Amino acid sequence: MINILFSARTELWPVYRDLLSGALADQGLDVHLSDDLPAADVDYIIFAPNPRLTDFTPYSRCRAVFSLWAGVDTIVQNETLTMPLCRLEDPGLTQGMVEWVTGHVLRHHLGMDRQILNQNGVWDPIAPPLAADRPITVLGMGVLGAACAQTLASIGFPVTGWSRTPKNVDGVTCIHSDDPRDALHDAQGVVLLLPATPQTKGILDADALNVMARGAFVINPGRGALIDDAALISALDSGQIGHATLDAFRIEPLPADDPYWSHPKVTVTPHIASETRPATAAKQIAENIKRAETGSPLMNLVDRTRGY
Amino acid sequence: MINILFSARTELWPVYRDLLSGALADQGLDVHLSDDLPAADVDYIIFAPNPRLTDFTPYSRCRAVFSLWAGVDTIVQNETLTMPLCRLEDPGLTQGMVEWVTGHVLRHHLGMDRQILNQNGVWDPIAPPLAADRPITVLGMGVLGAACAQTLASIGFPVTGWSRTPKNVDGVTCIHSDDPRDALHDAQGVVLLLPATPQTKGILDADALNVMARGAFVINPGRGALIDDAALISALDSGQIGHATLDAFRIEPLPADDPYWSHPKVTVTPHIASETRPATAAKQIAENIKRAETGSPLMNLVDRTRGY
Repeated sequence: MINILFSARTELWPVYRDLLSGALADQGLDVHLSDDLPAADVDYIIFAPNPRLTDFTPYSRCRAVFSLWAGVDTIVQNETLTMPLCRLEDPGLTQGMVEWVTGHVLRHHLGMDRQILNQNGVWDPIAPPLAADRPITVLGMGVLGAACAQTLASIGFPVTGWSRTPKNVDGVTCIHSDDPRDALHDAQGVVLLLPATPQTKGILDADALNVMARGAFVINPGRGALIDDAALISALDSGQIGHATLDAFRIEPLPADDPYWSHPKVTVTPHIASETRPATAAKQIAENIKRAETGSPLMNLVDRTRGY
Repeated sequence: MINILFSARTELWPVYRDLLSGALADQGLDVHLSDDLPAADVDYIIFAPNPRLTDFTPYSRCRAVFSLWAGVDTIVQNETLTMPLCRLEDPGLTQGMVEWVTGHVLRHHLGMDRQILNQNGVWDPIAPPLAADRPITVLGMGVLGAACAQTLASIGFPVTGWSRTPKNVDGVTCIHSDDPRDALHDAQGVVLLLPATPQTKGILDADALNVMARGAFVINPGRGALIDDAALISALDSGQIGHATLDAFRIEPLPADDPYWSHPKVTVTPHIASETRPATAAKQIAENIKRAETGSPLMNLVDRTRGY
């Protein structure tokens, strides 16, 4: 019998219980799955940050922790979490992200807000350029960034993808370097899908914003810490950046008095770019537990030195 | 020497003159191209509706008329236009339409207006379903409809395409019949890309709207006459239709006092879904004139009995 602890916000347990039980049974695993187990008995932990589990020390026999989130930046800093940690790469989350990013890139490309915000009876036809004339850069070529870049390219945008390590994505001009400016020159839009690490903190700073095409847009469905907030607001005020749509913030919920809410060139969205889809997430975690039990390499194992 | 008359709104002549001259030369044609020629000398007319040419009778030796527009409903009614008439199927226009339709379908799918219109400091995360759970129907499977349907399907939407004649479009469930309701049952969104003909006038009427899923959206980048306006406003008021984004109207520019402008569930866009791109349009027209000169079948020849 394998003991699996589900440790996340309490409202998630009823959502995941049956889905996980079913997915684990589909893998032929005989498990005891609960949201309440003695720490010393736990073999695996399915985890999202919650106030009840902040110290992993008592889970002495735990063989792996499976994150319910794609981003593990808040988890990886926990020094008591010494066992193998796996990120979630949920296909439902990736698909949702592709839809959100494609939609907001097209929104900015087409200048939709002009009509959505101004139903004033004035017939003022200004057709946008074609996507082929609107170069877009995606920072981060992980699963999410690569999927978004490929879909944008398939619609007709010239897409450059930037990452620290070499990547090869069909239809996307991939650049790897230590400096995102290498991929941002003359870009008319940027999509941030990097993990939050000490190296990526504030990576979209004044220098990076200033090499983009004047009036470019910024879309951040990734992590709040990727942006130098003061530099972005300054670039919006100067007109260097035309608009920013931000879904992730250093503090969430974004405080009601944050200047982003009231800035006329910023659209705040409440961390909805994509969310884990329980059905597909449960399948992936069950498959990973099967791998752990059969000695196969774990999928999406976090590299602690990289932080993701 | 072939005499070609360019007859459209005067401001288009400087846009097209050099592009057409270059494209015709690329086809190896020796032509005299002008916006002012004696009617009896004209071999071909490149045409968009304009007040200077409403009677084609004097153009006795004209062998074909090439429309600068994809929609020829206003032209085909001209009884003096008896020579072969070709529609434009400009790849730039098609691409622009795909971008506009995909963008607005994703806008409705993602519920973007909620954030664009309400930057009020309230953090209210509601993530949308995945595209796979949002069936979309495209009425009209011509070049524009088929291209839009394919792109929507490639993003993940289940897409049904409806037309009167049988069509086969990869990834799209094609239905042909005399009644669009056959393709609209439970659709959560509809995109109108039919030509305007006596048969399609008011095709999106109360009966058609009522078989859609409650709260569905309507997107009309096609022709204003396709919609029964009173039925649509009634369906919006009752909640049967959640939102309509309309780019084409029976009268354009849409009068400032039209109820569509002030309806809270309608977005009026000023006929910008797509426009002819002069560079690609000039190439296609030059190629068609070459065909006429060499006795090859004309591309995009309008069938007068169908009206498109």
